[in-house]
Amino acid sequence: MIVCEMRDADCYGIINKQFVGRLASCAKDQPYVVPVQYVASGGLLYSFSLPGRKIDNMRQNPNVCLQVDELQDHRHWKSVIIEGRYRELSEVDDCQRAWEILQHQITWWEPGALKPKSSNAIVESRSHLFYTISIDRMSGRQTAEE
Amino acid sequence: MIVCEMRDADCYGIINKQFVGRLASCAKDQPYVVPVQYVASGGLLYSFSLPGRKIDNMRQNPNVCLQVDELQDHRHWKSVIIEGRYRELSEVDDCQRAWEILQHQITWWEPGALKPKSSNAIVESRSHLFYTISIDRMSGRQTAEE
Repeated sequence: MIVCEMRDADCYGIINKQFVGRLASCAKDQPYVVPVQYVASGGLLYSFSLPGRKIDNMRQNPNVCLQVDELQDHRHWKSVIIEGRYRELSEVDDCQRAWEILQHQITWWEPGALKPKSSNAIVESRSHLFYTISIDRMSGRQTAEE
Repeated sequence: MIVCEMRDADCYGIINKQFVGRLASCAKDQPYVVPVQYVASGGLLYSFSLPGRKIDNMRQNPNVCLQVDELQDHRHWKSVIIEGRYRELSEVDDCQRAWEILQHQITWWEPGALKPKSSNAIVESRSHLFYTISIDRMSGRQTAEE
């Protein structure tokens, strides 16, 4: 078994196929990593979250890293790393669009729970928020037979 | 389905059972997260690595975060987060002990490939290195039925 660099097309293949990644943020020199659901669309990664430490971190420091993988077994795996920037969606139209993108693929929670109730509800209640991550740098590694 | 906080004992249960986690480091405000293999022993997490960006980051900023999970399906998952500090093992005795701990459970690479060949080889060749992560703070979340 050897470990090879992945081509960009193969990295995108993994990102588009998967919908769970591990998102690392960092504030005050303390990294923090949690699983997140995302959907890749139009060169961006869309996601949503309740307020909390992850969001606090990304508001302080928008640089993030998302790791997405397929770990079949210890000799067959692929792992992709994306570095990008967090952007919180505040405009109602942007939130609606994010919800439309997310609702088709997100199954972790019931998508209905995410649906913006009214134009003001999203911004006012802050019960959950939508954000994007840009794909500024990407790399991947995978196993191969020798 | 609801999401609950996990007790410390349950967090340790996951950490001891699993051997792959996602390790986040951060240098110059840019987080970085990669899958790593580890073994929990004596209140520390042991791991090894070839030199590279992850190690460079942790030498610059020893604060790290390791996320370990069991994702059965979207309604049955557990996720544990550990914050701690990186310590690179340089003493030959420490490296030998790390290797002994790791060789019993690590299957990703052949354990023999890790074996220190001689006292000097470990420090001189730097082909791979051993490190520990302290468990300074730990928390976990899991799904439960309503």
